[in-house]
Amino acid sequence: MNYLLTLKYDGSRYHGWQRQDNAITVQQCVEHAVRQLFGENVSVTGCSRTDTGVHANCFKCNFRVKKEMSHKSVISGMNHFLPDDIAVISSETADDDFNARFDCRSKEYIYKIYNAPVRDPFYVNRAYFYRYPLDEKMLNAQAKDYIGTHDFTSFCAAGATSKTTVRTVYNASVEREGDIVIFRVEGDGFLYNMVRIMVGTLINISEGKIEKGTIPAIIEAKDRLKAGKTEAPEGLYLNKVNY
Amino acid sequence: MNYLLTLKYDGSRYHGWQRQDNAITVQQCVEHAVRQLFGENVSVTGCSRTDTGVHANCFKCNFRVKKEMSHKSVISGMNHFLPDDIAVISSETADDDFNARFDCRSKEYIYKIYNAPVRDPFYVNRAYFYRYPLDEKMLNAQAKDYIGTHDFTSFCAAGATSKTTVRTVYNASVEREGDIVIFRVEGDGFLYNMVRIMVGTLINISEGKIEKGTIPAIIEAKDRLKAGKTEAPEGLYLNKVNY
Repeated sequence: MNYLLTLKYDGSRYHGWQRQDNAITVQQCVEHAVRQLFGENVSVTGCSRTDTGVHANCFKCNFRVKKEMSHKSVISGMNHFLPDDIAVISSETADDDFNARFDCRSKEYIYKIYNAPVRDPFYVNRAYFYRYPLDEKMLNAQAKDYIGTHDFTSFCAAGATSKTTVRTVYNASVEREGDIVIFRVEGDGFLYNMVRIMVGTLINISEGKIEKGTIPAIIEAKDRLKAGKTEAPEGLYLNKVNY
Repeated sequence: MNYLLTLKYDGSRYHGWQRQDNAITVQQCVEHAVRQLFGENVSVTGCSRTDTGVHANCFKCNFRVKKEMSHKSVISGMNHFLPDDIAVISSETADDDFNARFDCRSKEYIYKIYNAPVRDPFYVNRAYFYRYPLDEKMLNAQAKDYIGTHDFTSFCAAGATSKTTVRTVYNASVEREGDIVIFRVEGDGFLYNMVRIMVGTLINISEGKIEKGTIPAIIEAKDRLKAGKTEAPEGLYLNKVNY
C-alpha cells in the first residue's frame, strides 16, 4: 500500500526535511513513526527538501508498506508517535507508482514578515521581523516581474546542483494582514534558496539598495550577485503542493 | 522616575512572572534588562503573578530609577537586552506612588482551546489542544453564571493565601474563531488558578461530568471538589490590565 500523507510542521527545531547523520530532521521523525506504527523500515519520500527552520502548512510525502491500515488509524497512530511540532493532517491511498517528489506539478510558498516597530514574542521563529515600514502595494507591483518562465540563476544559491535553472513562476504577490506582510509565490519548482532570495531582493528594493523595476534585468543577468540577500528561513512556509 | 511598561511575552520557557531562586522567570529577565540599561539594581513590580507556561498579550509592570531616559530609548534599549520571547511594547511615566499591582482595577484573561480532531503544530504551547467537539454557544450560556460578586472558594487552588476569596467577575464569555475556542473573563481580581478551574469546569460540563446549569450551586458550595479540573496553563493569556 502506497500511503500519501499531508503533514504540517513547525520547522524551528529541525534541520529541514532531509535525513542527516548528525542533526534531527523531519524525515527521520516521520520514518521513526512509520516504523513504530507499521513495524516496517521504510524510506519516506518528501515533496521537497526544506531548509533548517523552514515551516510547512502543507507538506506531502509517501511511503510503501506491506501492512494495510485505515486512514483514520494512520492519522491517529502517526500523530501518537510524532513529536508535537509535526502533525499528520490527512492520509490517502496513492497509486502504486506515485512519487511525492517527482509527480509534483506545482508548489506554493508563503514568506511572512512581521513588520512593526517592536518584535512580537509570538512570531519569534514564525516570521521574519523587519522593523522599517514596508509598502506592500509597491512590493506587490515589483513582485509581478517574477512571474513567467525564466532562467532563475540570479536567484539560486551557490553550490546548488539542479540540472536546469529554468523555472516557471505562475503567480507572485505581496499583501498585508495587519502587521504581517506576506509574499506568496507559486511555481512549478524552486531552486535552492530561490524564495528567500526573491524576498531579500524585494526588501533591498524597499531599502533603495536595488532600484525599482530592475527585477527583469536581474533575472536577465544570470548572476547571483545582482540579486538581493538570502532572507532568514523562519519566515518561509511551504503552503500548498499540487499533483 | 517611575516607569510603567507594557510587556508582551510567550510564557512557554518561563516559570511564571515572579522571581525564583532555581528557575528562570520573566521578572528576572526584566530586572536584568533594567540593570543593563539604567545601571541600577531595582525591583520591578508586576501587575500579577502568572503561572509557569502562562502568556501575556498585555502585562503591566513598574520600577523606579534615578536616571531619566526617553520612552523611545527605554523601549528600544529594553528590547535589546530582553530575550526574544519577551517584548516591551510601550513605556509611560507613572505617578510617583503608582504601583502596578495594587492600583490595578481590573484584568481580562483569555483562554485559548485549539478544538479540532488533529493538533496544530503552530499552537503547541500556545493553546490547549482538545479534540472532541465543543459547543461554544452552550458554553457561552454556562459561562454567564460566573458573572457577579461571589465567594470563589470552589474555584481556588488549595494552598492559596489570599485574604479574601470574594471576587467580582464583570464579564465572561465563550466564542469560536475557526478552530480556536476562546474563553474570555474580566474581573477585579482572580484567585490562584481561578481562570484555569473555570475553563476546566466548562470542559467538564461539555463532557457531561458536571451538570449544565450547576455553576451557581458550585459557587455556593465553596468547595474546590465540586468544580472541574484545573485546565493546562498553555492556553492562558493575560490580555488586558486596567488602572
